[in-house]
Amino acid sequence: MEMVPVLLKAGKRVVDLSADYRLKDVKIYEKFYQVKHKDKAHLTESVYGLPELYRTKIKNAKLVANPGCYPTASILALAPLLALGLADPGSIIIDAKSGVTGAGRKIAEGFLFSEINEDFKAYKVNMHQHAPEIDQELSKLAGKKIKVTFVPHLLPINRGILATIYAKKAKNVKRKRQSLTDTYKKFYKKEPFVRIREEGQMPRIKDVVHTNFCDIGIKEDAQGAIIVAAIDNLLKGASGQAVQNLNIMCGFSEYTALL
Amino acid sequence: MEMVPVLLKAGKRVVDLSADYRLKDVKIYEKFYQVKHKDKAHLTESVYGLPELYRTKIKNAKLVANPGCYPTASILALAPLLALGLADPGSIIIDAKSGVTGAGRKIAEGFLFSEINEDFKAYKVNMHQHAPEIDQELSKLAGKKIKVTFVPHLLPINRGILATIYAKKAKNVKRKRQSLTDTYKKFYKKEPFVRIREEGQMPRIKDVVHTNFCDIGIKEDAQGAIIVAAIDNLLKGASGQAVQNLNIMCGFSEYTALL
Amino acid sequence: MEMVPVLLKAGKRVVDLSADYRLKDVKIYEKFYQVKHKDKAHLTESVYGLPELYRTKIKNAKLVANPGCYPTASILALAPLLALGLADPGSIIIDAKSGVTGAGRKIAEGFLFSEINEDFKAYKVNMHQHAPEIDQELSKLAGKKIKVTFVPHLLPINRGILATIYAKKAKNVKRKRQSLTDTYKKFYKKEPFVRIREEGQMPRIKDVVHTNFCDIGIKEDAQGAIIVAAIDNLLKGASGQAVQNLNIMCGFSEYTALL
Amino acid sequence: MEMVPVLLKAGKRVVDLSADYRLKDVKIYEKFYQVKHKDKAHLTESVYGLPELYRTKIKNAKLVANPGCYPTASILALAPLLALGLADPGSIIIDAKSGVTGAGRKIAEGFLFSEINEDFKAYKVNMHQHAPEIDQELSKLAGKKIKVTFVPHLLPINRGILATIYAKKAKNVKRKRQSLTDTYKKFYKKEPFVRIREEGQMPRIKDVVHTNFCDIGIKEDAQGAIIVAAIDNLLKGASGQAVQNLNIMCGFSEYTALL
Repeated sequence: MEMVPVLLKAGKRVVDLSADYRLKDVKIYEKFYQVKHKDKAHLTESVYGLPELYRTKIKNAKLVANPGCYPTASILALAPLLALGLADPGSIIIDAKSGVTGAGRKIAEGFLFSEINEDFKAYKVNMHQHAPEIDQELSKLAGKKIKVTFVPHLLPINRGILATIYAKKAKNVKRKRQSLTDTYKKFYKKEPFVRIREEGQMPRIKDVVHTNFCDIGIKEDAQGAIIVAAIDNLLKGASGQAVQNLNIMCGFSEYTALL
Repeated sequence: MEMVPVLLKAGKRVVDLSADYRLKDVKIYEKFYQVKHKDKAHLTESVYGLPELYRTKIKNAKLVANPGCYPTASILALAPLLALGLADPGSIIIDAKSGVTGAGRKIAEGFLFSEINEDFKAYKVNMHQHAPEIDQELSKLAGKKIKVTFVPHLLPINRGILATIYAKKAKNVKRKRQSLTDTYKKFYKKEPFVRIREEGQMPRIKDVVHTNFCDIGIKEDAQGAIIVAAIDNLLKGASGQAVQNLNIMCGFSEYTALL
Repeated sequence: MEMVPVLLKAGKRVVDLSADYRLKDVKIYEKFYQVKHKDKAHLTESVYGLPELYRTKIKNAKLVANPGCYPTASILALAPLLALGLADPGSIIIDAKSGVTGAGRKIAEGFLFSEINEDFKAYKVNMHQHAPEIDQELSKLAGKKIKVTFVPHLLPINRGILATIYAKKAKNVKRKRQSLTDTYKKFYKKEPFVRIREEGQMPRIKDVVHTNFCDIGIKEDAQGAIIVAAIDNLLKGASGQAVQNLNIMCGFSEYTALL
Repeated sequence: MEMVPVLLKAGKRVVDLSADYRLKDVKIYEKFYQVKHKDKAHLTESVYGLPELYRTKIKNAKLVANPGCYPTASILALAPLLALGLADPGSIIIDAKSGVTGAGRKIAEGFLFSEINEDFKAYKVNMHQHAPEIDQELSKLAGKKIKVTFVPHLLPINRGILATIYAKKAKNVKRKRQSLTDTYKKFYKKEPFVRIREEGQMPRIKDVVHTNFCDIGIKEDAQGAIIVAAIDNLLKGASGQAVQNLNIMCGFSEYTALL
């Protein structure tokens, strides 16, 4: 937020990898990031850089706020359910697991090899700074206020996120005519970087690492669905998505430099 | 179930590490293990070997069915909630993660180093053979039929289980006078191998590996609770618990050979 | 050796990734691989596919025997010393360490995750099938029979080889006018995929993984030198080198599909 | 060296885990540890705490300098060869590999999970501070000045050291009547924590981790021998050996608290 106003003033278009322009509500930003926002002026015009939801706006955007890694996986996994009113918005639980590069390159005791290796833990249980970002976007999709339960965990691997998501069926949903898997396939039909697995087939981190893909698998039951989404946190969850946004902004093929 | 009748007939007392005497319902056993049960006669008298729930019965038991690793962590994490009627029995979701020794020493492609290392995945989503074992014991505690949502995952580590569990508050629970953490502490007050963390402190796998402890942390919110339980799947989840049962059966100190 | 004669007869040019055409001495091949050689006819005409030594011959070769992974790292690390007569040929010790993909995708107990993870070991001590391949090529370079001491080790990582090599100075070498590092830099000056580190700087596996590079570092002392070479066993040690050979054979830029 | 004089003055006996009293030559200590020695007075009386070599002196020692982890593995692997004059003292090469706990719990970029995981490297090539400790003890055993070649490497595992050691036969050794393996077995016959493998069988790190054992395997050939030694750097390489020394000093069974 210190560089961005300078760049915009100079007539540049910006894809911002930081969290500074993702949250529209400054109070929530300041609470979760524990820092004063210095450029509220550009908050309104920034476009949330998830191409699957905002492609048209990204095309002409001056400022794109590139999404966080957990939100990318979580929102893509839930967008069809909420946009189509298929899930109970109050029921959503996201149990997410990330490799250590998710936290950047912090030099702290908690990130030493012998602290991470052969271990696994939950952290920031229901208080991670990515939760309000997920809430904001899912609320927009659902057309009503959503607050998810979000528990991140730290995996002893270098890269990759896998989110296991639990959602109950919306109460008023009638007997459906197609499987959720088919609904998802249709929803993401034209998306170059979202791949929907066959019913009951779940993606694993190996499937997406070193790629810009988000792979999604769905398992339905009487009460709702379990959705598993996997991305590479450094690509679709960060710089890969930034390149995808840049491609859209510049009118390049969306695959450029990503295949 | 081939050895056990022979041993019992010879007057021996048995702690069985297999799954053969855990499930009281033979049909469920045969469905999930894909094998015919050969010793239904002893099913009724077998005692489920979770000392925290069945210590008195274990003391004099002739046949103890040592619990599975996932059920040990899951049941201990949920027992206070269900025994005391604090959780909505229909709301329970168990997102469990296990190191590879949970699967024994199978020589199969899926367990090769290069298949597991730097990867993470869900498997047997909502169809794992440990789910009915959890359902059986939680139903007994709650006094009503319970069917949990259970999703196991495979961690790239040798040993350890961490289960992240989501439960909604029972509808009729009044304003509580103590925290869930205090409730848990009281419930497990005299247990030598269950340790309850302070409110909001979550255990990690490193805390319990190479020990017989089950560590439990609780985070409450308005709607319910997130409970995290960690055990070493080879000790409290298998042979350690068998030794604990043997100690009880023989009148030894429960710590014998376990500290 | 079953496919190759068929392909050659059909007028195809072949880069063979197997070990069948690497060793010129059939007896040694049959001893180390425990299999009868079925195509001795083409053994003589096959060219050893190490571009740094045989580029001219590879250009027009009909049959290229792509080198093993350990030999690639070892021979590149030692070629300048032996070609220029700087090392005592009887003194060479290669202490090599490889990730598990070096062994292919064998389904055997020894390659299970829990057998490899958190472990490290030497194997086939001084009897690995890659040793005669190294001996053959170093002998050619030195113009005399060489038998190295070769001890491979298994690293708990997916990919990458690091070889630490010990060589004593040749007895008759006069006071040198340049450092060994400079000698190596000159020797590999035009090589696209060999990178020589500054004096005393040693490469690590991370430097080369997912690339076709061979990185080499040298540390000299009064008695000789310690040379460390690192490659990705799946690229410069296998398919990457095959592509490099194909590029040479077809007159493409050597970097094609490798950068 | 700040605490020790105080403790000795108070009549206490000391096992020092630091490096301060290991090297008899203060100049070498100050060069390698980059710190001024503050207690030269007690250097002479300190006993090097390797029970296999100094048990009698340790028994009555006031100050025991507990050996480093690399020296423990290296000296035990070479003691029989040098004490019996079987190896050429100028030929010794130690290629050692250690898990990350060997470096203590330093919070530095180089020890972050993502720096170590899936990587492997040599470090301090022929300039590690443990080399002079090895030289000092091997020289005493051989009765002549020895300077080994010592190259340590960093393994992506928590604990364990494996040293692969190369030694040429002493020139004047006559045709031997027994294998080196038998020589080693005889040499360490009464040692509670040294285990010699059968000829050609090599130990791995898993064999010794969480134990105080040093396992040694030997492979002989016409020119000399390859010796592989494995220890747990935190036990036989540090605190386990300290307990062994304490047991000796107090007249306890040497196994006390170590089995």
